[in-house]
Amino acid sequence: MVRVAVDGMGGDTAPHAVVKGAEIAAAEGIAEVILVGDEKLLTPLLKNPRSVKTVHAPTYVKMDESPSLALRRKKDSSIGVAMELVKEKKADAVVSAGNSGATMAFAIFTLGRIKNVDRPAIATLHPNIKKGTTVLLDAGGTVDCKPFHLAQFALMGNAFAKSILNINSPRIGILSNGEEITKGNELTREAHSLIEKMNLNYIGYVEGTDLYNGRVDVVVTDGFVGNIALKISEGIVEALFSFFKENINRSLIGKLGYLLLKNTFEELGRKVDYSEYGGAPLLGVDGICIICHGKSNAWAIRNAIALARRFAESSLHEVLKRSLEELSEI
Amino acid sequence: MVRVAVDGMGGDTAPHAVVKGAEIAAAEGIAEVILVGDEKLLTPLLKNPRSVKTVHAPTYVKMDESPSLALRRKKDSSIGVAMELVKEKKADAVVSAGNSGATMAFAIFTLGRIKNVDRPAIATLHPNIKKGTTVLLDAGGTVDCKPFHLAQFALMGNAFAKSILNINSPRIGILSNGEEITKGNELTREAHSLIEKMNLNYIGYVEGTDLYNGRVDVVVTDGFVGNIALKISEGIVEALFSFFKENINRSLIGKLGYLLLKNTFEELGRKVDYSEYGGAPLLGVDGICIICHGKSNAWAIRNAIALARRFAESSLHEVLKRSLEELSEI
Repeated sequence: MVRVAVDGMGGDTAPHAVVKGAEIAAAEGIAEVILVGDEKLLTPLLKNPRSVKTVHAPTYVKMDESPSLALRRKKDSSIGVAMELVKEKKADAVVSAGNSGATMAFAIFTLGRIKNVDRPAIATLHPNIKKGTTVLLDAGGTVDCKPFHLAQFALMGNAFAKSILNINSPRIGILSNGEEITKGNELTREAHSLIEKMNLNYIGYVEGTDLYNGRVDVVVTDGFVGNIALKISEGIVEALFSFFKENINRSLIGKLGYLLLKNTFEELGRKVDYSEYGGAPLLGVDGICIICHGKSNAWAIRNAIALARRFAESSLHEVLKRSLEELSEI
Repeated sequence: MVRVAVDGMGGDTAPHAVVKGAEIAAAEGIAEVILVGDEKLLTPLLKNPRSVKTVHAPTYVKMDESPSLALRRKKDSSIGVAMELVKEKKADAVVSAGNSGATMAFAIFTLGRIKNVDRPAIATLHPNIKKGTTVLLDAGGTVDCKPFHLAQFALMGNAFAKSILNINSPRIGILSNGEEITKGNELTREAHSLIEKMNLNYIGYVEGTDLYNGRVDVVVTDGFVGNIALKISEGIVEALFSFFKENINRSLIGKLGYLLLKNTFEELGRKVDYSEYGGAPLLGVDGICIICHGKSNAWAIRNAIALARRFAESSLHEVLKRSLEELSEI
């Protein structure tokens, strides 16, 4: 069975929600769960102590702590120890809802990077109107990017879409402020001339609207823009739901209308709820690492563990490594 | 009455939709409308030729034409002639749904810039869940920005929120990938240290979610990120509406539920429909210029003319000039 090391102390709702999510995943037989953190805190929270293993880590990294300082001073933190388990082949993947900068730092330091990857990228999944899924990367891993970082992201996104979404020849686009090649900024223009020479199904610049219309499978951008794209999406969905809630509760007719459309609203809720995806993989490090939303509830943690298992059982890691090797041939 | 020069040849649906929108605005007495373009094409489309004036312009700028080439070679284009009317004080504002790069180029060249503005910015309005409006700038005017451009945008956004949204002390934020000051990219970090020294109600970094939650009144960003933010919003709203449509039409219960919630859906539709706003002002040029969506229908053109009138009758332009003068004192 796939063994998943879970950072028991990471996230706004840790350790409670994390422990609960870990127990759900274990009870469902999704994976062998190894909960890492302060055992004095974690063990009393376990309802069924035999269902998950625990590994002790005396400290943890706070949400607002500097990742580089944490990396130097807190090797014995829950995320540090969880990464070590993967490095020592005692676990197949890491899941953390903690300080994502620190998770990245420990992943790079402990697991190392795949050959030809300079910076890792967070890949997020977005449902599109063609009933498919669009991958966005980088959603916040690497903020200040060089053009060759975007080229590496394109290769990683391609490998990810192939092995996880089963798309034969994923359409790759660079996120820009217009489709015409006269658009874009300095970064995208240079990245464009790199990526168009690569052996990819590159379709050129894509716009913000294309993240949700199914015109492209992999949207490449730097971590600054990617994070904003992700949070804008989150913000507008929250605003729409709040608008509906208020209008529906205003009248009896509204409430009745809601009842009739309840399934639709609930399906939509699941579609756009990050906790359904569980988390997002950190691509480019030499191991499987799932980064969860800081606000993850138990259901999100459970789903992140399921995602870790899916990646561990897939060919993702091998396909990624092979794809990136091509880069040196160019 | 406010006189608005409308680019009769600009936009995907020109001249038909533009002529129609101009006639609606004129019939409602919103403004004195001056339709600029090829009179051989425009005049036959007018249902009531006496309701709007026409001014002849023999050429026009195509949607995909290079703005700089258009500026050099097509001074006699509809947008070129419309700008001249404002410069010569024969019109108080310009409205165009045409090539926005060319509109900007002609605005800068013909009207000039306000003192201390290096680059103009497009300001878009976004409804937020606190029932207020959040201003985003730049939504696509200036793609490659320097930190002092963002500082100028902050001042312009402040003036805009004060004089148009009647907010006493607008909360200004820089769009970033996290609130903590350790976040941001090179551009935002330098812009932050400039803006925090200015006499503004600056609240620091804001995230994508904050564009819709009412935590901030003015969101400052470069035109590349701003355009993506705008298009992401557009894309996700389209996706949600398409999802609802499909689910609602699937069953009788769905259709009934929709009927009961019809007002809510329609209100939401208006809230997120760019044609309700009409267009977005180009701030920083020495005159009033409204840039419309290329896909503008007649209703959007009518509303853009109404917006132009509102700006012409407000203190916006004076407040903008005064605000920017402060910059030289810093």
